[in-house]
Amino acid sequence: MKNHKKLPVWKQKLGQLVENRWFTSSVIILILINAIVVGLETYPNLYSEYKSAFWTADRILLWIFTVEIALRLLAAPSLKHFFTNSWNWFDFIIVAAGHVFVGAHFVTVLRILRVLRVFRAISVVPSLRRLVDALLMTIPALGNIMLLMSIIFYIFAVIGTMLFQQVSPEYFGNLQLSLLTLFQVVTLESWASEVMRPIFEILPWSWLYFVSFVLVGTFVVFNLFIGVIVNNVEKAESAEEEVKDTHNEVMELRKEVQELKHLIKNEVINK
Amino acid sequence: MKNHKKLPVWKQKLGQLVENRWFTSSVIILILINAIVVGLETYPNLYSEYKSAFWTADRILLWIFTVEIALRLLAAPSLKHFFTNSWNWFDFIIVAAGHVFVGAHFVTVLRILRVLRVFRAISVVPSLRRLVDALLMTIPALGNIMLLMSIIFYIFAVIGTMLFQQVSPEYFGNLQLSLLTLFQVVTLESWASEVMRPIFEILPWSWLYFVSFVLVGTFVVFNLFIGVIVNNVEKAESAEEEVKDTHNEVMELRKEVQELKHLIKNEVINK
Amino acid sequence: MKNHKKLPVWKQKLGQLVENRWFTSSVIILILINAIVVGLETYPNLYSEYKSAFWTADRILLWIFTVEIALRLLAAPSLKHFFTNSWNWFDFIIVAAGHVFVGAHFVTVLRILRVLRVFRAISVVPSLRRLVDALLMTIPALGNIMLLMSIIFYIFAVIGTMLFQQVSPEYFGNLQLSLLTLFQVVTLESWASEVMRPIFEILPWSWLYFVSFVLVGTFVVFNLFIGVIVNNVEKAESAEEEVKDTHNEVMELRKEVQELKHLIKNEVINK
Amino acid sequence: MKNHKKLPVWKQKLGQLVENRWFTSSVIILILINAIVVGLETYPNLYSEYKSAFWTADRILLWIFTVEIALRLLAAPSLKHFFTNSWNWFDFIIVAAGHVFVGAHFVTVLRILRVLRVFRAISVVPSLRRLVDALLMTIPALGNIMLLMSIIFYIFAVIGTMLFQQVSPEYFGNLQLSLLTLFQVVTLESWASEVMRPIFEILPWSWLYFVSFVLVGTFVVFNLFIGVIVNNVEKAESAEEEVKDTHNEVMELRKEVQELKHLIKNEVINK
Repeated sequence: MKNHKKLPVWKQKLGQLVENRWFTSSVIILILINAIVVGLETYPNLYSEYKSAFWTADRILLWIFTVEIALRLLAAPSLKHFFTNSWNWFDFIIVAAGHVFVGAHFVTVLRILRVLRVFRAISVVPSLRRLVDALLMTIPALGNIMLLMSIIFYIFAVIGTMLFQQVSPEYFGNLQLSLLTLFQVVTLESWASEVMRPIFEILPWSWLYFVSFVLVGTFVVFNLFIGVIVNNVEKAESAEEEVKDTHNEVMELRKEVQELKHLIKNEVINK
Repeated sequence: MKNHKKLPVWKQKLGQLVENRWFTSSVIILILINAIVVGLETYPNLYSEYKSAFWTADRILLWIFTVEIALRLLAAPSLKHFFTNSWNWFDFIIVAAGHVFVGAHFVTVLRILRVLRVFRAISVVPSLRRLVDALLMTIPALGNIMLLMSIIFYIFAVIGTMLFQQVSPEYFGNLQLSLLTLFQVVTLESWASEVMRPIFEILPWSWLYFVSFVLVGTFVVFNLFIGVIVNNVEKAESAEEEVKDTHNEVMELRKEVQELKHLIKNEVINK
Repeated sequence: MKNHKKLPVWKQKLGQLVENRWFTSSVIILILINAIVVGLETYPNLYSEYKSAFWTADRILLWIFTVEIALRLLAAPSLKHFFTNSWNWFDFIIVAAGHVFVGAHFVTVLRILRVLRVFRAISVVPSLRRLVDALLMTIPALGNIMLLMSIIFYIFAVIGTMLFQQVSPEYFGNLQLSLLTLFQVVTLESWASEVMRPIFEILPWSWLYFVSFVLVGTFVVFNLFIGVIVNNVEKAESAEEEVKDTHNEVMELRKEVQELKHLIKNEVINK
Repeated sequence: MKNHKKLPVWKQKLGQLVENRWFTSSVIILILINAIVVGLETYPNLYSEYKSAFWTADRILLWIFTVEIALRLLAAPSLKHFFTNSWNWFDFIIVAAGHVFVGAHFVTVLRILRVLRVFRAISVVPSLRRLVDALLMTIPALGNIMLLMSIIFYIFAVIGTMLFQQVSPEYFGNLQLSLLTLFQVVTLESWASEVMRPIFEILPWSWLYFVSFVLVGTFVVFNLFIGVIVNNVEKAESAEEEVKDTHNEVMELRKEVQELKHLIKNEVINK
């Protein structure tokens, strides 16, 4: 965006239009209208009565968004440049999918796509985009702890299925069900009253399985959270490097003062 | 409050009265009495037997509070000055509403107003007022993350209503119900046992919706909390700016020492 | 304990005995035995069979603890000195109460007292005593926020009782019940599924009450927690004052260098 | 591992093989296959149909792991050196147990052992091993607070059993059940709706027991968590010592400047 000078004039003009405050505001308003439309569609009476109106509104909004993204794409220095930004990918796919699935029979898929267009509010408002970028940035640092979590989940799920398959088919009927149940247990939701107690009545040693999973699971989840906190606090405290700089600064200063002292001692006094 | 000198004498005297320890203590005691009265009113037997006594007590308390606020208002340099403080607005509205609704048929509204007068304890006790000010101050900094939360809530609510309207009318019957249900889910209260499991039995893919919402929702709520923590820690660590100052200080000092060195070298030695 | 020299010889010897490692270890073992005895007593079969044995064991333990505390008291420089330590008060009351209630008919009170004696493990093990002291120390700093919490609880309880008394007598039947229910709601336990939903079906606006209480309540509780964290982090970071000192140090140093510069300029050059 | 030079040549070669990237990758793949095999075994239809295939796969995997660990053991400078690493103990026991129990009738024990082999993924991937080491390292620092927690749990469990044995045999029937119930209460799971409310209806004072346990329990658990956070933050902030160094540095520098000043004053001016 910084090397506009080398772009053809029409690209520059388009770039100015696309980055204009009014353009962005208009897009935000259209996204809001889109949000209201998909909200109203959820009321069955309204939907059946004004079905064609909703359809038309959706078509118009989709085409406006298509034109908007086409303009953005044309304003970009190159296709490659446009698609290096993952938010542009997101915008492009959300809108393109609206065209691809238009004739499809999967009405629900199409309707969900319309709702997902509301997510574009994030990609259009710069402060929200930065916030989400910051939130997503904390995820890769947690890769290892999430891998550990997966291993623990998998092992407990396999053991849970083996042990409680017959006793509690609803919660531990198969590996998928066990994984879902363990996710419920790690959020501490009804882990005792609904999941453990009925099994506990038949298998009195089963508390060992649940208590150990709750302890291990919450401990790891908690450390995952601490990871995020410490990450954030560290970022806020990168000023500390500055402090380290100060240290070096003072060290060098001291050397200079010592040199100065020797200088005076040797040159001024012994003169 | 600092420019009392230019105020007329009666305003100064009134200001001294209003800021007097005994005045404040008396108001706190009256608020306590108000609290006890509204507490006792909740017992139906007591209320029906001493209805008129309660009514009288309420009238007396309301008029005392009215006089108190009138005194505060008169003691203020000007009307504008009085209403720049939002706590004064709060006090004024709470008491004024007591007069406005007095003849109304909405007995419940009137009774709730009486209870809300207990909140005046916060506006009267300075340390509590400062605490609440500090708590409220953390909210605007969270504007963006709350906006993000709203977008996520809205999108999930619309999708939830679309998908589960027929299956679970109690939880996802319409957009409002879905929003309430999602609020319940984000507090992790019975999200699996009561909300998801019954839907999961009919629509086996529905776990995707709930697990993704729990993950996204708790992640964002958690980051909202971290925002508050980091905010608070930062405030407690504003001393770090001081550290930065130190750095600049040392940098300047070093320059001076270097100048000094050149001075000695050129003037003393080469002399 | 530092001014042993001025104490009579027998007090010094007693002090040495009481602070001896073996003495403390023996007391810890006796507390452990006490813990096991009260644990075994909870089994009805065991208790009815060996009732007199349990009674005898309890009598012996009580008298040993009495002797122990008497020794500690005698070893202390003075009665006043002994009772300035709140842990000594705790020990004294726990053991004295065992004698006071011995003939009483309140068997349950007596048995609970026996169990509470296990808490003496905290007062005897120094590291535990320090930990509990540290935990209790964080409470007074939270005075204001707990006062605010009380006001919020009280107001919501009164309003809740007023509004939902008829609809949900189990949860909001009277002021005490409402306070208990709000405590349950603030822990987020079944606040929606058990408490709100049944009321919500009759009074559709009731979600406002619950959602606002959950938001306000968890926000304040969360800030109460943050207070504790920041308190702890601050303690761990009191080294920062050191940093501030550095700043002042550098400032003074700079002044000295400037003086030095003027000195050289005026005296050496202009000479 | 650093003093390979003094090892016999075959040990060196073996050490190179064992630490080779391909070797480690192969082991990770075999662990993944092991994970998939134990996962598939949980499906009863699959298991009964391919029972012998599963048995063969398990035998082959066990022997490969045995060879792998034997190679690691031979590559180590000595038996003692190998077993000083607790991860090697873990690997050894997991695999050895597979051989020990092979002919046993405890099919479930054997199958659980096979699942636990998946935990070897942690001991093989260095970054995971370091993460788990770091997590486990935080536990000893929490020794005291966990001891305190145990004392509180035990005392509340004994009192709970004494008081509610008859009223709620399901939750407080004996000491073990009470301990399990208290663990459930401390996770705040259905503590009110399922555990307290039924008892509360019969014994109206029972709320005191539960509310005090919830307050004390969550307070201590919360402080346990804070301990971990502060521990982590401290580690991340050990740079602060550096700051302290700066202070000393500046102090010494100041002394030198003062010496310099006196030097100039006495020698240059008074000359």
